[in-house]
Amino acid sequence: MYGLIGKMRAARGQRDAVMDVLRETTGALPGCLSYVIAIDPVDADAIWVTEVWTDQASHKASLQLPEVQAAIAKARPFIAGFEFQVETRPVGGFGLPTAEPG
Amino acid sequence: MYGLIGKMRAARGQRDAVMDVLRETTGALPGCLSYVIAIDPVDADAIWVTEVWTDQASHKASLQLPEVQAAIAKARPFIAGFEFQVETRPVGGFGLPTAEPG
Repeated sequence: MYGLIGKMRAARGQRDAVMDVLRETTGALPGCLSYVIAIDPVDADAIWVTEVWTDQASHKASLQLPEVQAAIAKARPFIAGFEFQVETRPVGGFGLPTAEPG
Repeated sequence: MYGLIGKMRAARGQRDAVMDVLRETTGALPGCLSYVIAIDPVDADAIWVTEVWTDQASHKASLQLPEVQAAIAKARPFIAGFEFQVETRPVGGFGLPTAEPG
């Protein structure tokens, strides 16, 4: 599996606009196992996104999907920047459709 | 919902021992919606854990469960420390059993 953990910063006061775009877009994209969008209780313009994909290729391919391209274009004006991003290799746990629990 | 994103550092060479304990423990704990354990491709002793719970009380209660207490005791000798932890408020996305997709 391939994972991403990222913190994005919305332009001042535009967090909900970004969240709305993210929520409209994150349906059943091919290879996407989990895509969780979260606010930060102590940082009003921050958005945390944690993603799990079957593999890196699926994530890369998703960025070319018309609906994802459209979402990126729609959200871009409301995004101030990306503060943090790390790639991970999820190996298991609970709640992933294909993960082995132990 | 209540979320946690954390990076833990295993004692040198003990990452797999910690992962084994985590994977044995993360079954269907009450209120746990997602618990993803991941390695870091560029940091050999690091473990990323991303959690989603129905609420903070469920997470807090889980720490008192006998199986979780036993896991903490078992893993502790193999853990060097916690480098990063942030609380989040997941609001949606894809792949969570109770999340509204948009």
